[in-house]
Amino acid sequence: MTSNERLRVAVIGGGFMGRMHTQAWRTAPRFFRLPRRVEPAVLVGRRRDGAADASALGWPEYSDDWREVVEREDIDVVDVCTPGDTHAEIALAALAAGKHVLCEKPLANSVEDADRMADAAAAATGVAMCGFSYRRTPALALARSMITDGWIGAIRHVRAQYLQDWLSDPDAPHTWRLDRDRAGSGALGDIGAHSIDTAQWLTGDRIAEVSATVRTFVPDRPPMARANGLGGTGARGARLPVTVDDAVAFTARFEGGALGVFEATRMATGRRNANRIEINGSAGSIAFDFERMNELEYYDAADAAGRQGFRRIQATESEHPYAGAWWPAGHGLGYEHLFVHQVVDFVWATVGATDAGAPTFGEAADLQRVLAAVEQSAANDAVMRTVRRRTEQRRDA
Amino acid sequence: MTSNERLRVAVIGGGFMGRMHTQAWRTAPRFFRLPRRVEPAVLVGRRRDGAADASALGWPEYSDDWREVVEREDIDVVDVCTPGDTHAEIALAALAAGKHVLCEKPLANSVEDADRMADAAAAATGVAMCGFSYRRTPALALARSMITDGWIGAIRHVRAQYLQDWLSDPDAPHTWRLDRDRAGSGALGDIGAHSIDTAQWLTGDRIAEVSATVRTFVPDRPPMARANGLGGTGARGARLPVTVDDAVAFTARFEGGALGVFEATRMATGRRNANRIEINGSAGSIAFDFERMNELEYYDAADAAGRQGFRRIQATESEHPYAGAWWPAGHGLGYEHLFVHQVVDFVWATVGATDAGAPTFGEAADLQRVLAAVEQSAANDAVMRTVRRRTEQRRDA
Amino acid sequence: MTSNERLRVAVIGGGFMGRMHTQAWRTAPRFFRLPRRVEPAVLVGRRRDGAADASALGWPEYSDDWREVVEREDIDVVDVCTPGDTHAEIALAALAAGKHVLCEKPLANSVEDADRMADAAAAATGVAMCGFSYRRTPALALARSMITDGWIGAIRHVRAQYLQDWLSDPDAPHTWRLDRDRAGSGALGDIGAHSIDTAQWLTGDRIAEVSATVRTFVPDRPPMARANGLGGTGARGARLPVTVDDAVAFTARFEGGALGVFEATRMATGRRNANRIEINGSAGSIAFDFERMNELEYYDAADAAGRQGFRRIQATESEHPYAGAWWPAGHGLGYEHLFVHQVVDFVWATVGATDAGAPTFGEAADLQRVLAAVEQSAANDAVMRTVRRRTEQRRDA
Amino acid sequence: MTSNERLRVAVIGGGFMGRMHTQAWRTAPRFFRLPRRVEPAVLVGRRRDGAADASALGWPEYSDDWREVVEREDIDVVDVCTPGDTHAEIALAALAAGKHVLCEKPLANSVEDADRMADAAAAATGVAMCGFSYRRTPALALARSMITDGWIGAIRHVRAQYLQDWLSDPDAPHTWRLDRDRAGSGALGDIGAHSIDTAQWLTGDRIAEVSATVRTFVPDRPPMARANGLGGTGARGARLPVTVDDAVAFTARFEGGALGVFEATRMATGRRNANRIEINGSAGSIAFDFERMNELEYYDAADAAGRQGFRRIQATESEHPYAGAWWPAGHGLGYEHLFVHQVVDFVWATVGATDAGAPTFGEAADLQRVLAAVEQSAANDAVMRTVRRRTEQRRDA
Repeated sequence: MTSNERLRVAVIGGGFMGRMHTQAWRTAPRFFRLPRRVEPAVLVGRRRDGAADASALGWPEYSDDWREVVEREDIDVVDVCTPGDTHAEIALAALAAGKHVLCEKPLANSVEDADRMADAAAAATGVAMCGFSYRRTPALALARSMITDGWIGAIRHVRAQYLQDWLSDPDAPHTWRLDRDRAGSGALGDIGAHSIDTAQWLTGDRIAEVSATVRTFVPDRPPMARANGLGGTGARGARLPVTVDDAVAFTARFEGGALGVFEATRMATGRRNANRIEINGSAGSIAFDFERMNELEYYDAADAAGRQGFRRIQATESEHPYAGAWWPAGHGLGYEHLFVHQVVDFVWATVGATDAGAPTFGEAADLQRVLAAVEQSAANDAVMRTVRRRTEQRRDA
Repeated sequence: MTSNERLRVAVIGGGFMGRMHTQAWRTAPRFFRLPRRVEPAVLVGRRRDGAADASALGWPEYSDDWREVVEREDIDVVDVCTPGDTHAEIALAALAAGKHVLCEKPLANSVEDADRMADAAAAATGVAMCGFSYRRTPALALARSMITDGWIGAIRHVRAQYLQDWLSDPDAPHTWRLDRDRAGSGALGDIGAHSIDTAQWLTGDRIAEVSATVRTFVPDRPPMARANGLGGTGARGARLPVTVDDAVAFTARFEGGALGVFEATRMATGRRNANRIEINGSAGSIAFDFERMNELEYYDAADAAGRQGFRRIQATESEHPYAGAWWPAGHGLGYEHLFVHQVVDFVWATVGATDAGAPTFGEAADLQRVLAAVEQSAANDAVMRTVRRRTEQRRDA
Repeated sequence: MTSNERLRVAVIGGGFMGRMHTQAWRTAPRFFRLPRRVEPAVLVGRRRDGAADASALGWPEYSDDWREVVEREDIDVVDVCTPGDTHAEIALAALAAGKHVLCEKPLANSVEDADRMADAAAAATGVAMCGFSYRRTPALALARSMITDGWIGAIRHVRAQYLQDWLSDPDAPHTWRLDRDRAGSGALGDIGAHSIDTAQWLTGDRIAEVSATVRTFVPDRPPMARANGLGGTGARGARLPVTVDDAVAFTARFEGGALGVFEATRMATGRRNANRIEINGSAGSIAFDFERMNELEYYDAADAAGRQGFRRIQATESEHPYAGAWWPAGHGLGYEHLFVHQVVDFVWATVGATDAGAPTFGEAADLQRVLAAVEQSAANDAVMRTVRRRTEQRRDA
Repeated sequence: MTSNERLRVAVIGGGFMGRMHTQAWRTAPRFFRLPRRVEPAVLVGRRRDGAADASALGWPEYSDDWREVVEREDIDVVDVCTPGDTHAEIALAALAAGKHVLCEKPLANSVEDADRMADAAAAATGVAMCGFSYRRTPALALARSMITDGWIGAIRHVRAQYLQDWLSDPDAPHTWRLDRDRAGSGALGDIGAHSIDTAQWLTGDRIAEVSATVRTFVPDRPPMARANGLGGTGARGARLPVTVDDAVAFTARFEGGALGVFEATRMATGRRNANRIEINGSAGSIAFDFERMNELEYYDAADAAGRQGFRRIQATESEHPYAGAWWPAGHGLGYEHLFVHQVVDFVWATVGATDAGAPTFGEAADLQRVLAAVEQSAANDAVMRTVRRRTEQRRDA
């Protein structure tokens, strides 16, 4: 399953995610055995004058023309780290050019775009993977392997919350993330999408039906400059409208019958990044909170009566997924390392490693359909069934 | 507001709750200053031969005829600790006889009965209080006073879970609590009702609208004896049907706009009595879990930047509601003490102390209407508005 | 082992501990099966006019003459709840009169007194038990049974801290507890004694050697009135000297080789009553903090690799010592219940139940000798060996 | 304070620490603004054939001759990551050649060597820094700034534990770390040294006096191969002697009067890397556990009565030391990042940034003297005073 061929990488996008992916491409080969030699080749940004910054990040080359780069013969991987509204165009071009594609989530801003990408990926030869990085948290990967191996039995409850608070202050400034045209949705697509993906992946089950409600608690916000005290007239009319949700909550029915309760918000004062999930099965339970990302709580109903209790597993031991490649148990990992692990899996996927390239574009497009069902349910005050992609279904057959 | 008159008490019901209330009536005067002298007078049970047990519990008198007792001149308080389907009859008789009435929750098994009781209470002279004992947890009473005083600002999120696991094992035996005719509902009325009451009381707001789903994961269970290994043929037909919900989840809109997410279940493997609530406001948050009943977590958004974090307040200090009457800080209280505090409040209510007698029968009947709305929403897959009692509305005017 | 005889109880001391014991004697028979019928008979106080208060607490009789009471034919149990400097005189008289004696800790203020009491107890027919109530915490009793049954293997580490903070403020007022003549010692005897007793009891081992240091951080304090703002000139000379330790720390060698580290302080700002102990053995560990008294943390080294972690056992389940007599799992107990359990054990000891009457006066006198060794070690900057009582040693033979 | 000169780095040592430092030198410039351009130049190892591995780690050059490298004109920094017994020779050569030197802890295996290194550093022009990496944990750096700014007042208690468990199993294999000749000491120098450094650095105070005890619970262990099941006769004689301490505990007096309690062990079953410290002051407290390295607990005695409690600060916010350069709050950092921060400080120290180069060799040599005092105290069962280096004292003057 290994190959001695090198893998020449282009990262598209020089922002926060571009920097993070750069670090991951650099770090992965130093700690993990990889089947191919990784060669960071070119960083693509929007600015004409980005070369110096690219060089500081260790890139041998910089370009501001993604179209030219994705078609170059000497590029094997296109890693898309741009905002969501550009994903489809870039990824489709890269797939058409025969590249392996890693695309940041959300796959696209619409179900239509996501479907086109999934169709193209299904027809393409390269790997097409969407970057749901939380799957690469060692504690969650451990949870997945435990659940898959039957450690918690048949699943009844999924309880997922993604709580942030950066919009808690009504005068926190407006950003493009609060503009529906650019961001697609608010808390739902940004963080709720992670909860949904994690829940479906951990359980190996799919959400069949949702009943949702959304809130926008603060309908308008000051523009960035004013909030920073850099002038402005203070007239209320100058505030910008928030056109996405601040928060969303929904109940869900999984195909296997489990009851899901989901909540995502940017207004949970005091919760910086509480990406939490608890799953209760007939034989045990797991619980996780990303604010303590190196821990997995696990309850085993088979423990002796009177000796039962949730265990705090420090999920950075040599037996644990990913963690074993790093330092000894009890020496924690950070957010950054999720992206390193994602690169490791992606590289193995390029030589055919089973499941390493998940979620595929198809899986990510199906997730987009769940998001759409949530929005429709909230808009119509009605229970909505989720609809899977036909292509994906055919694949299953 | 005080009175030197004594208060002669009859407790109706000799089961678990009867014992608990007995203990509370005995203990309250030893630790709290009360405006009236409490005299436990008579315990009423169903058994002919209950006198010895009553005596062991310290009761000077025993009776198996509640009708006779509630009409006696020498009884001032009737404390109803029987199963829910008998509440209405006993409480109505006691109110008619001019007694003060403390009635265990749920107030009744139907909205109709609850309304009749609330109407009678509104017309009566005595105190009529429903026993939502969790309100008397010092940490929650502290939370309520902080919220009322504005410490967390305008409320956006209410996140309440009541998680138990005594039905997690599919062969856990059947009990009357799983029979709709006797219990009214399952997790919803038994524990979800506590979450709803706590949420409305803490926020001072009302649930206006709900969207619910319910589950019965295990449709039938072995009768008590078989589960204990005392024989039985093992034929599946011998199992008894479960006619109530194992679990319920719903989203809610509060009148003030807050977004509520509620979940109650008896199948959350490993969670023995996780009665949890978190409330996020514009200026702070509180979080509570009854499994750590002596602690309140509190986040103050006004703390200095970089010094912010959830505080673990040990809510048994001299400044805290109820706790100050007991022992020094850090010496915890137990479940039992909620009932002691309930008695304290009830006694003060009999001399007119404001709010001490809450929740009133009217408030409890309104809660019953929320429960009914949850059930209707689940049955119809539709958002249901809650309807308040007219009497109560008139009172507000 | 049971008896139908009644047990008539006199409590000596009407202060905080007297009230607590009163509550325990009243409560124990209502929740536990006891071999004898408990009859609270008389409360003894120092005040002439204590009868009304005694009556309010439910006592049929009050006396201000303990000598007369301890010799009455109709008294079976003398429960000594007075300050430590009076324990010896009262307990010796009660033992001489053939009573069962329960004596609050510390057994006495000096090794000499403690030895006399232990000698008298060894020669007496009645039960003579010292009230180390923390042994009756369900979580600690569970820990003891697990350790005794070998669940954590051979013991290497004992790590005990008893952290309080009521003297953290340098202007917290002086009390009799800060006066060596009356209190014997400071944090050492008041709370450190609990840690030592718990450590020896849990391990079944004895401290053989100690190396200690003490601190008095605040050498003088305002008298009670001044601290309350009730006048005073504020002249520094008016402050009263603190003649006991604020804090003590020591390392210890147990006879079996385990390494102990102990610390007791009243100056640990923010720690209200953190009575903590952790024990590491070759096969597992336990950890406990009284601020979360209903929880025991337990680590089992035999759990599968990669599935290991400290479990949070809620030690109030039906399988757990004491807790099973109360309400369902997850419904916590409080500080008060330790005293109830102590009464239960004491009553069983009066009919000969093995170990129920521990710690005996002999065991408590040996503890006093450990305290003395700690003080001598601190005074001399030297390692001190602890010396056991001869009587007790003979008993072992 | 900045310079445009580049900083050419040689790392000596290709083991675990060499890899960690390599990663740090690579990562620091990508996330932090640095005053000089960092150029990793050469990796030095012991093996002849190390070039390929060095190249995989991104090093342009490899050498197996450290003497030659430390004298090269084109090297500005020598980063010593070899075992402790070689530190003195390499560091002294590097200082003599005018290089900036970063040396892993412990500075040396003996006080004599440490003093020679400190003397050389005092006379040298370059930066000479010892790698106590835990100082670069954001939560601890936050604690230090809070303590320095007076947030917890006058310090009374220091409570430090460093608990590991990799030797808990008596058949865990022997390693060079258990050989006194090579490792110097056991838990004391390996992990206890971190606790001592952290304690002195956080408090800004020095340990004046110690009273210590040590334990070696398992006197011999199987050689590495046998433990792995790779043959061996199983004869007990084949086990190798453990000549260092498994555990150490000591009480300490700080110059300012604070009471310290320290414990370090590799036998605390279930504790993987519990590097804990709690400090109680007159105005507040801080508490930390490296197993939750992104959190700092903080208690403020000035919080309103009844609203007090330990706050869980997530120490990865923009206001926090180091953390602000990374990703948003709530997205944790890992063990690796301590070394990145160490590089950042070191580079700033090369352009004269105050305190950035701490601990200096002089400070590290003083720490070595505390370790020696601990060992002498344990050996002699006596309280030992610590003795500072004269040079350092002169510096202070």
